[in-house]
Amino acid sequence: MNFRLLAKLLGILVLLIGAAMLFSLIWAYPKFGHHTYPDPSIATGLFESGGVRGLVCSAIICGVLGASMLFFGRQSNEKIFRKEAMAAVGLSWVLATFLGALPYVFSGTMRGPSIRMYGETSVLVASPRWKIWNAWEEVDVDPEQRQVLIAVTSSNARGLSARELASRTGLLDAVEVFRDLQQQPKFSDWLIGAGDDRRAPVDRASQYRVGWVPMGLIDGMFEAQSGFSTTGATVISDLEDPYMVPHCILFWRSSTHFLGGLGIIVLFVVLLGQNSAGKALMRTEMPGPTQDSSSARMQHAAWLFAGVYIALNVLLAVILKLLGMSTFDSICHSFGTMATGGFSTYNSSLGHFFLEDPGKGRIIEYVIILFMTFAGANFTLLFLAVIGKPLKLFRDTEFRTYVGFILFSSLMLMAFGFGTQIQEFETIESGLRNSLFQVVSVLTTTGFGTADFDGWREMQRAWLFALMFIGGCTGSTGGGMKVIRHVLFVKILKIEVEAAFNPHEVRLLKMEGKSVEDQTLRHSILVYAGLVFLLFGFGVLFVVGIEPATTWGAGSTNKLIDSASAVAATLNNIGPGLGVVGPTENYGSFSGLSKLLFIWLMMLGRLEIFPILVLFSPKFWRD
Amino acid sequence: MNFRLLAKLLGILVLLIGAAMLFSLIWAYPKFGHHTYPDPSIATGLFESGGVRGLVCSAIICGVLGASMLFFGRQSNEKIFRKEAMAAVGLSWVLATFLGALPYVFSGTMRGPSIRMYGETSVLVASPRWKIWNAWEEVDVDPEQRQVLIAVTSSNARGLSARELASRTGLLDAVEVFRDLQQQPKFSDWLIGAGDDRRAPVDRASQYRVGWVPMGLIDGMFEAQSGFSTTGATVISDLEDPYMVPHCILFWRSSTHFLGGLGIIVLFVVLLGQNSAGKALMRTEMPGPTQDSSSARMQHAAWLFAGVYIALNVLLAVILKLLGMSTFDSICHSFGTMATGGFSTYNSSLGHFFLEDPGKGRIIEYVIILFMTFAGANFTLLFLAVIGKPLKLFRDTEFRTYVGFILFSSLMLMAFGFGTQIQEFETIESGLRNSLFQVVSVLTTTGFGTADFDGWREMQRAWLFALMFIGGCTGSTGGGMKVIRHVLFVKILKIEVEAAFNPHEVRLLKMEGKSVEDQTLRHSILVYAGLVFLLFGFGVLFVVGIEPATTWGAGSTNKLIDSASAVAATLNNIGPGLGVVGPTENYGSFSGLSKLLFIWLMMLGRLEIFPILVLFSPKFWRD
Repeated sequence: MNFRLLAKLLGILVLLIGAAMLFSLIWAYPKFGHHTYPDPSIATGLFESGGVRGLVCSAIICGVLGASMLFFGRQSNEKIFRKEAMAAVGLSWVLATFLGALPYVFSGTMRGPSIRMYGETSVLVASPRWKIWNAWEEVDVDPEQRQVLIAVTSSNARGLSARELASRTGLLDAVEVFRDLQQQPKFSDWLIGAGDDRRAPVDRASQYRVGWVPMGLIDGMFEAQSGFSTTGATVISDLEDPYMVPHCILFWRSSTHFLGGLGIIVLFVVLLGQNSAGKALMRTEMPGPTQDSSSARMQHAAWLFAGVYIALNVLLAVILKLLGMSTFDSICHSFGTMATGGFSTYNSSLGHFFLEDPGKGRIIEYVIILFMTFAGANFTLLFLAVIGKPLKLFRDTEFRTYVGFILFSSLMLMAFGFGTQIQEFETIESGLRNSLFQVVSVLTTTGFGTADFDGWREMQRAWLFALMFIGGCTGSTGGGMKVIRHVLFVKILKIEVEAAFNPHEVRLLKMEGKSVEDQTLRHSILVYAGLVFLLFGFGVLFVVGIEPATTWGAGSTNKLIDSASAVAATLNNIGPGLGVVGPTENYGSFSGLSKLLFIWLMMLGRLEIFPILVLFSPKFWRD
Repeated sequence: MNFRLLAKLLGILVLLIGAAMLFSLIWAYPKFGHHTYPDPSIATGLFESGGVRGLVCSAIICGVLGASMLFFGRQSNEKIFRKEAMAAVGLSWVLATFLGALPYVFSGTMRGPSIRMYGETSVLVASPRWKIWNAWEEVDVDPEQRQVLIAVTSSNARGLSARELASRTGLLDAVEVFRDLQQQPKFSDWLIGAGDDRRAPVDRASQYRVGWVPMGLIDGMFEAQSGFSTTGATVISDLEDPYMVPHCILFWRSSTHFLGGLGIIVLFVVLLGQNSAGKALMRTEMPGPTQDSSSARMQHAAWLFAGVYIALNVLLAVILKLLGMSTFDSICHSFGTMATGGFSTYNSSLGHFFLEDPGKGRIIEYVIILFMTFAGANFTLLFLAVIGKPLKLFRDTEFRTYVGFILFSSLMLMAFGFGTQIQEFETIESGLRNSLFQVVSVLTTTGFGTADFDGWREMQRAWLFALMFIGGCTGSTGGGMKVIRHVLFVKILKIEVEAAFNPHEVRLLKMEGKSVEDQTLRHSILVYAGLVFLLFGFGVLFVVGIEPATTWGAGSTNKLIDSASAVAATLNNIGPGLGVVGPTENYGSFSGLSKLLFIWLMMLGRLEIFPILVLFSPKFWRD
């Protein structure tokens, strides 16, 4: 292993990440505009010093680290071998995850306000502030209790002792008042599960702790990996309060989508162009006979991809801006859409705009559906369609299957949705729009939400769960297993079933009439599917095994299916899953160990497993 | 396709099935002994005329059908080609399922007592009688209500009109009384979900229907297929009441296990010995170099298998008899164990003996654990071990992995079980025994139960769920995917990961130091795994889609995981799953369409998919 060369390659990446951080700084200045519909209860217009501190410190670290690595690798051999290329790709993601986490940690970004009580029942209580605000009027609280609630949920403290709480509220029996509050029936609605309880005091019965939960390194790494891998899973429960998450940090968060969506393919093709991993990508990225896989052609494809990607990003951002979004929101959502990421800047994700203004929100949703569909399609074919060859797109088996999946799945959701009590299916337009949106969002692995599909019928939930394993087209930013793999998988199975009763006839794997038979292709399709299901299975067992029951709160028996959906949603780079990780929830309540697993799964899913898996092979590092 | 030859082969099978039915007749005579601990509340010692009618009628049908088929195929070409062999195997299972169902239908066997109310809420209520008996004292019923309950639950009627109910109870307001009864909190405990409600009267609000639910053709086919495929899933909720299920029918039920466990392998090897399916089986059945796959050798292996199977059946039956079981029970449980089936003759499955007599029951459970382990191991290796070559067994990779799975899984269940409130883990002995039993039962795909593992911790449930996809060893009666496939699967994945960074080195698939590389072997392992997961996925979507929410009763949100476990438990021939199909429940409440799917899945699982799948290929039937 040529470590100097490795250091050089990674050094470039580190410097790029550092530079990207500085780009987010602009949104620390309020005059550049923030959220589209600012919450009047939140004082806006302040310079975000915390966010600036986080970004600048992180950028400096990147600069120093990157420069050191370049210095270490200054005299490296230029020749890149397969091993170095794989190590570079794998390690660059590990590094990016770590560095991308720093702005969250250094800026003091909060993943959620939390009330932790260590009472007689040993139940941890965590409550996001905005839920309390919304439910405020429904709760039967007296003025004293209200005072305690405000103190514990608006405090910037990491934890409050009993004395601190008492002094902050001016009530000497604040602890008692809080305990009374906990008896409220409404209180249990705010339970979103427990974080880690390692910091629980020894004497639980008489202690409690309240405060905001700042993002630690694991939280930051989760958020960074979720961004870079364009998953869109989050640990942050309140995106709309700039005291908790500054705008410039939010922008950094969306920037990771942009970088992840762009970078991974470019890295793959440019660095790995000469081997079969690159070839496999290229084969379907460039339709037609492509036995010619010269380095120049790969470079060309990479730049074409980047061009289409950036053009669509700009186009979508302009359209969203014209539809009334602020510049900040339009860019962030454009990044989230075109990278098939799914990070929004609102707690109710893209559904926010419909809630604020149904007329415009509806149009925004249709626009996003269209652009998500683009983002999940083959960019080369999109390019060809624009320059006058649309038939190439519609004759492409993968694209047709992809559109078929979207239409059929939407019909299924509608068939099971209409005639029920589900809010989204009250009108035909709403049912159609929400079905399409959810299907396209999950299929393209974007993960934006406009409806809480977790509350839909079981068949609809199961269908969306199954869609998680399909994914977008190759040559797109979409993650998952990719449509082409499923097409080939079904073809292979068909061939094998026929071979079972007629073993002597030779059958070739064909696509669009042409043979694509290749000794390794059949294997790689099957092996990939096998690995995905193996990782999925072990992931679920791991989460179910280590995650305490308190994450699900009392009385829930959905641990298995929720864990399965969380593993599927991270491994396939979707974002939201079912239950505790449903569209209205987040991953914040999982334990640190589970979060580390999810980080690893997101990385595996985004890099199509092998570049990460080989890092764990001792043989790989031996010379 | 040589249909005459096909008819001849199938005709022989039909006659065999008919003959087997007559063997069960003996248990219609009470003097041969029945249940080990008869329920004193049930009048035993009566000649079972219903059961005799069912068995004799069915045997006559088999005789006439079989003779006709033999007559049609009397001048057939003797040469068996691959296609005929596959068709014979596939169709023989379809025929066996249908014919095996007849005794249940003709004997009027009841799958469960049921109370159907078509009330204002349109909720169907089905209640198994024995639960009512058990809960009798806990229910706050007045004498009138009691009278109604007795009338509706002990009636042999298929349905009672309001007038019939009134006349039977002597109460003119029986309907009102029953409705009162329905308000009892305890009543909801008896809800086991709905059957089909096609027979619901038009005026639901004022109608109700009560009665026993006789087994229809689909129920019978489910039970027959479950028996032949050695799954052990049942639709019958009360096995201990001879009025509902005569002893001779119970014996027929267990006989299907014996036939299924014996027959399928023998059929495979004898009929399919010359092709790769047979070869693949043989390869692992006969350890060592077995390029020699002559027909004579296959025949020898088949007879060896049958010999070991029958010897173990006899040995176990004698041991169980010595441990105090009646002859009837010892034979039935021996059949259920050695075929890795899982049909018991008691409602609480094998746990019954512990409940009746903990001392003896404990020993019975250990004996059954041991024999289930035998049943899931390679019979050839067992034979070699007995004739003085035990090292062959312990040097076999598959057997060692198999034992490793058992021990490690039991340790996992214990690790998560001890220190909890779960009854089975109160003492070390109980925890060990119940962990071992449940693990061996699921891993070998037997499906006997001694504990309601559905009430255990989520990790334990998830672990057992995952074990469903492992299965027994090849050359055993165990179903599932088989241990050897997992061993090879992991080896293949390891090779592929290494090939990812070093594609030019040739790596061969090795087992016990010897290369087993084969162009088709790698494929077949991967394709098989792919098919299993594809069938699993579509099966779950199908069940979730068509099964009404009432099957789960009100308020349950476990439809996804329960359906998934039901599909996994039938496809892998286990039997019990989680939730509504948990160890204390049964498949009776599923709709007919779901039952048909389960029948198909059991057949697919038992025949390792291909022989059934090809029947659906039009190309297969074309000449």
